Amino acid sequence: MKLATLKDGSRDGQLAVVSRDLAGALFATGIATRLQQVLDDWNFLSPQLEDLYTTLNHGKARHAFAFDPRACMAPLPRAYQWADASAYPSHVRRVLHARGAEVPAGLLEVPLMYQGGSDDFLGPCDGAVFADVAWGIDLESELAVVTGDLAMGSTPDAALEAVRLVLLANDWSLRSLVPAEVARGFGFLQSKPATAFAPVAVTPDELGGAWRGGRLHLKVATQVNGQRLGDVEGGAGMHFHFGQLLAHLARTRNVRAGAIVGSGTVSHDDEAQGVSCLAERRALEMIREGQAATDWLQFGDLVHIEVHDAAGQSVFGAIEQRVRSTVESHPAEAVGKVP
Amino acid sequence: MKLATLKDGSRDGQLAVVSRDLAGALFATGIATRLQQVLDDWNFLSPQLEDLYTTLNHGKARHAFAFDPRACMAPLPRAYQWADASAYPSHVRRVLHARGAEVPAGLLEVPLMYQGGSDDFLGPCDGAVFADVAWGIDLESELAVVTGDLAMGSTPDAALEAVRLVLLANDWSLRSLVPAEVARGFGFLQSKPATAFAPVAVTPDELGGAWRGGRLHLKVATQVNGQRLGDVEGGAGMHFHFGQLLAHLARTRNVRAGAIVGSGTVSHDDEAQGVSCLAERRALEMIREGQAATDWLQFGDLVHIEVHDAAGQSVFGAIEQRVRSTVESHPAEAVGKVP
Repeated sequence: MKLATLKDGSRDGQLAVVSRDLAGALFATGIATRLQQVLDDWNFLSPQLEDLYTTLNHGKARHAFAFDPRACMAPLPRAYQWADASAYPSHVRRVLHARGAEVPAGLLEVPLMYQGGSDDFLGPCDGAVFADVAWGIDLESELAVVTGDLAMGSTPDAALEAVRLVLLANDWSLRSLVPAEVARGFGFLQSKPATAFAPVAVTPDELGGAWRGGRLHLKVATQVNGQRLGDVEGGAGMHFHFGQLLAHLARTRNVRAGAIVGSGTVSHDDEAQGVSCLAERRALEMIREGQAATDWLQFGDLVHIEVHDAAGQSVFGAIEQRVRSTVESHPAEAVGKVP
Repeated sequence: MKLATLKDGSRDGQLAVVSRDLAGALFATGIATRLQQVLDDWNFLSPQLEDLYTTLNHGKARHAFAFDPRACMAPLPRAYQWADASAYPSHVRRVLHARGAEVPAGLLEVPLMYQGGSDDFLGPCDGAVFADVAWGIDLESELAVVTGDLAMGSTPDAALEAVRLVLLANDWSLRSLVPAEVARGFGFLQSKPATAFAPVAVTPDELGGAWRGGRLHLKVATQVNGQRLGDVEGGAGMHFHFGQLLAHLARTRNVRAGAIVGSGTVSHDDEAQGVSCLAERRALEMIREGQAATDWLQFGDLVHIEVHDAAGQSVFGAIEQRVRSTVESHPAEAVGKVP
């Protein structure tokens, strides 16, 4: 099934079931009002949502309404955990090569993963607000999963069984702030601002044969200002599958229902597929031509990220975000608006 | 006022107001059932809780019951953000010296801060469960604050105004896993398992003159198996105050109500005060005697952390945790128990 969270002025929004073709939606009133509630009690609540989903897809749902991605928050507007891996070796190799940094030891043996902030996710069409373009604003098209409860020490197979939902994400990155943070050894913090998610969260069964081996075998299409950045195969270049990533996170602690784990920037060695972030495009330019021709994002730039299935149907709906300046968007007032 | 969360079998527990002397408590039924609810709507709900607190302290609350820290979860059993700083330079200098690592550039200019996991906090008397003592199990006695909404780019002064609650924490650390994670540049992940919190969250006004300049000027007492590890002044050695730490976190993103920011291990240059983690004791031994005599924690060891005010009253209640083995405690079953 497909689920979304609609803006209603509250911090957690209103849970809705969305039709397979993303045309219609239906509030899950009477079952659950928030997605985290469903994740907290999945075995009891998700079958009821599945029934609603079937009714909606058959065009038989009273109270159905047209689905509008612009009215969406992230499926989980805030979550209790967001850990993001870097599971595509071609991304790591290209970016570190361009930065003049060494590829970390054991790149293919132990997943790279950082802990991210999860208290303020962006909706799919929310502006991405930054104070300074000198920070090196970049997008990162990623896949992600939401997990159920996972005990410390779970195996990759058990972890894969705990995957509840698959997501599409834009992991905003501030490239100019990365080197200093990495050098200090405490990982990314200011260099990884609020992450955005596509409007619709999708159960693995909904993905059919494209979800296999713990990976999503569909292309992730990324555009900047309408220009193609890449159409990159999400499964082929992903070295560690999501079960392995979750098991890595759960090695020394329990992971609780509603935790989100990201794949890292979708990437593939085949350069014809393009890339899923500007850092990689710049890296390829530096490798080929000695210097980067592409600049980081500027205020006003529009980023579009989407995944289509074999039949051409958008799976998660699109992320479509404009880069905005704090001067223009008064984030202090925006925060003040929340009750 | 003082607030706690009691175990009731649910993920978020039941909010209670606790008397100043920690003798009695009262459920906040009718006002709020969960602490996050209060943080989401602080200006409306906290005055009602304050009234309840006054009634309780005057011994006039019907339905009051004896307060039992062992029945407590962490004040926020799960949170949307946990970011932990390292604001005591003496801790950083000692630990890095012993590890043979360089002190990061700008130690006194820019806070060190890592993003931690916040989906599965431990209660004050919960066992701390690990699979292997070879991981180098260590405690870290820390102070922390819970914030209200904080807009991107907030100043340290504004951030300090947004502090809602002060906490006492035990930031469990797996020292043997640290070097490899730091070397890979993505920060701590497996080396920072679930953090524990003292039973009671305290509003800054409750701390009187001990809360000044964004620091808590009381001693943090730490014992292992009843032996004193330290009685370390929480304010004097803290280089960055909590407003500065919050502003650091909010530099590139909004920080939302309920986010927790930690001070890092409480430390002071005065060696007579002792230390607040074993890594520092070992570091001092290595500096003085060429090698560490103190071992990391073993299964069965008991850690006690507490802060008393000038009148000798326990401020947050005690953290009292035993180190346990996964073999003994079946974490898979423990996770399964959650509804």
